[in-house]
Amino acid sequence: MYKPNMLFHGMVQGLERPFKHLIDISLGDAHRGGLQPITFVRQVKHAVKLLKISDNSFSRSVETMNEKLNKSLCLCVCAYLGSYTATCGLPKIQHSLSEFISRRDRGVPSSPENIFITSGSQQALMLVLRLFVHGKGSLQTGIMTPVPSSPLFNMALSSLGGAVVPYHLCEEEGWTLRLDEMRRALATARRHCNPMGLYVINPGNPVGQVQSQKSIEDVIRFAAEEKLFLLADEVYQDSVHDPTAEFVSYKRVLHEMGPPYSNTVELASFNSASKGFMGECGLRGGYVEFVNLDSAVMGHIYTLFSTEACTAVMGQIALDIMANPPRSGDASYTAFFEAGEVQNRRNTLNNNAKRVQETLNSLDGMSCQPIRGGIYAFPQLHLPARAVAKAEEAGVAPDLLYCMLLLEEMGLCVGPGSEHLQRKDTHHLRYITHLPDEPIPLMKVLSLVYKLTSSAAEIYF
Amino acid sequence: MYKPNMLFHGMVQGLERPFKHLIDISLGDAHRGGLQPITFVRQVKHAVKLLKISDNSFSRSVETMNEKLNKSLCLCVCAYLGSYTATCGLPKIQHSLSEFISRRDRGVPSSPENIFITSGSQQALMLVLRLFVHGKGSLQTGIMTPVPSSPLFNMALSSLGGAVVPYHLCEEEGWTLRLDEMRRALATARRHCNPMGLYVINPGNPVGQVQSQKSIEDVIRFAAEEKLFLLADEVYQDSVHDPTAEFVSYKRVLHEMGPPYSNTVELASFNSASKGFMGECGLRGGYVEFVNLDSAVMGHIYTLFSTEACTAVMGQIALDIMANPPRSGDASYTAFFEAGEVQNRRNTLNNNAKRVQETLNSLDGMSCQPIRGGIYAFPQLHLPARAVAKAEEAGVAPDLLYCMLLLEEMGLCVGPGSEHLQRKDTHHLRYITHLPDEPIPLMKVLSLVYKLTSSAAEIYF
Repeated sequence: MYKPNMLFHGMVQGLERPFKHLIDISLGDAHRGGLQPITFVRQVKHAVKLLKISDNSFSRSVETMNEKLNKSLCLCVCAYLGSYTATCGLPKIQHSLSEFISRRDRGVPSSPENIFITSGSQQALMLVLRLFVHGKGSLQTGIMTPVPSSPLFNMALSSLGGAVVPYHLCEEEGWTLRLDEMRRALATARRHCNPMGLYVINPGNPVGQVQSQKSIEDVIRFAAEEKLFLLADEVYQDSVHDPTAEFVSYKRVLHEMGPPYSNTVELASFNSASKGFMGECGLRGGYVEFVNLDSAVMGHIYTLFSTEACTAVMGQIALDIMANPPRSGDASYTAFFEAGEVQNRRNTLNNNAKRVQETLNSLDGMSCQPIRGGIYAFPQLHLPARAVAKAEEAGVAPDLLYCMLLLEEMGLCVGPGSEHLQRKDTHHLRYITHLPDEPIPLMKVLSLVYKLTSSAAEIYF
Repeated sequence: MYKPNMLFHGMVQGLERPFKHLIDISLGDAHRGGLQPITFVRQVKHAVKLLKISDNSFSRSVETMNEKLNKSLCLCVCAYLGSYTATCGLPKIQHSLSEFISRRDRGVPSSPENIFITSGSQQALMLVLRLFVHGKGSLQTGIMTPVPSSPLFNMALSSLGGAVVPYHLCEEEGWTLRLDEMRRALATARRHCNPMGLYVINPGNPVGQVQSQKSIEDVIRFAAEEKLFLLADEVYQDSVHDPTAEFVSYKRVLHEMGPPYSNTVELASFNSASKGFMGECGLRGGYVEFVNLDSAVMGHIYTLFSTEACTAVMGQIALDIMANPPRSGDASYTAFFEAGEVQNRRNTLNNNAKRVQETLNSLDGMSCQPIRGGIYAFPQLHLPARAVAKAEEAGVAPDLLYCMLLLEEMGLCVGPGSEHLQRKDTHHLRYITHLPDEPIPLMKVLSLVYKLTSSAAEIYF
């Protein structure tokens, strides 16, 4: 029988494994998970390729493309694929994004000059953190971050010398944000650092909660009272699959609350072409929109963003397609919508979320809160005491040990909850639920997890 | 007559201009300057587009492509275009780059694990600076940087809280690095900061010098004596156009010097797909190779680089083509080389460098050191005293005023030397020389500059 201790003594190389194919669903990468790229996105990329650089042939190409693609996209692809763009991105695409935001927020105004296009939302987060992370000791900047959270965010914050100020989401209540917990976290943190920002992820990563308008109002009031800069990670805004829930942006709620909130609370809202229906992680396109920032600060942000040159033109184009998909009447509308790709992947995500939740809750040793949004499942593992003891003996987190077993025994790669931080003495798994029926059927994944449920795990530990 | 003062009183909007087309050659962006992308690079991008994500069709596509493209490229494009890659880039492309470096350096070994692929060399520079820039007062990290230098580098360093420690290149001697000047700069800086790094640009930006092997040895010895981390910006390594000069990498010289240098001096060498014969600025692909770094530091670098997710797959593919172009016998060799694109652009650059230098030196009020490498001209402007006085009156740098005149009167956009720092009381221009004969003929640019030579400028000031 396979012995987990072998994992920790360099004996894993060269072993024959009891499976033929490795399934990696540990990352939030829809294409790697098996989702096909949206055909239209690839078509536009091809069209861009046809464009020549000289003005004459350039106009000709655009004209030809006009017949095939919708006009706004043609304008967008006027970008020189091989050239630098402005620091904040192509003005046309900043404009598209501001219109998209305004439509999404039921008319709340949005200005292109407050939108900075970046190589994914993670780069935008890093740049914004660089705005105010500094100091040492009690002057060290602290950022309130949810637990569980994105490990990349915590890594970025620490690498800049900032302090993670953890506030726990309430798992029992479906991973909700609780004000009493946020107040507790802030008071504790003020003893050793200077908390300046509050990071929220809605819809949640990895926990899949979707905040209600009321919950967002509470958080905004809290941020206003405590003078915290709000960092709203809203990259999963397109992925709400509980029909009773709705994505409402922090910006819209802030606007609807009126003064003094709407004109004072500083907000940075992040979005990305890597998530949602496109899932174009490898093209690298994201953006941040700033609200209520002083113009001198905006000037400083411009300098800061300039230090990393511009975003890949392809990534910017992906953002434009996300913000500005073909509309009814456009020549390309049919290609985009009627093939059903967009709707199909929404259906897949909705169905998977339901199936994952039901199946995990039916398993011995697993439980899963409702997955209302996002692209991940984050079930709790109720590990046998022997497994926990074994892990402690080996000096690894118990859920990491479980993940390594899943990998070694079943060829299934998922992430351990300990990477995302979690309440002490609880253990979780994280994996992407955005899986199509082919080539990685969700049920296969679930059956592999099933084989290592708590009671079955007894034999391994 | 046009009055330059109008520039500074908000009266420029809506004026009728004496030109029809604007020519922007202020940026180091070859495609914007008018150079066509290499056809083969666009073909590969198209081929990548054809690849499907599922394993089966994926292999089939690669097989078909094998018939058309060379094999190594097929391996490279096995990337999922829409997926994240490893933090440091696709292993296959790290491998290609290490082979490329080793070939370039006449066999000096290079390891893929020391190569980190980034969204252009500027991002790599930022990440490396984050390694050791910290502190305040006399503990503030200083980095020795050439004057003139890249304004982006200085901005990045300052934005991280580091101090620019300027050392002047000697214009009269063809913009050479002089050890006495570097020693002077270091001694001065040590009074107020802690100089930890030495930034060199070879071939030069914006000055176009090419360092000899002897000069590089001197710099390495200096870095070793003073315990400075070497940051070698070698993104113009493919652009040496003086037949008597040769690009020799810092890494090769370091290796050939033998111990104690070769095994102790810490070096980061930067390269990019945005420069050289490809000039693919908009795809965003660069890399850094580290030499002689402690393994614990390398681990820390890995964490640091992880905070910004991966590089766009398209940018990585551009790097692979740069590192690993088709070889004689490959099916795609003809497409790549025999159309003459690569050689044509090398010829253009070589000829332009010569013509710019000769023409500028024949003009009244201009002088230009030999342009031996890189893609820029950086001529000195000998401005009339009245022009300098006028600029001071208006509170702008004299060469900026000159550039604004060139823009307003001739429609020619070039950069002022003051952006790059320059020796007090000297004034310069910077512009790209990597211009094809169409659509922006070099001679037109020169004739526009000619119209504003020192004597002609008298009438404007």
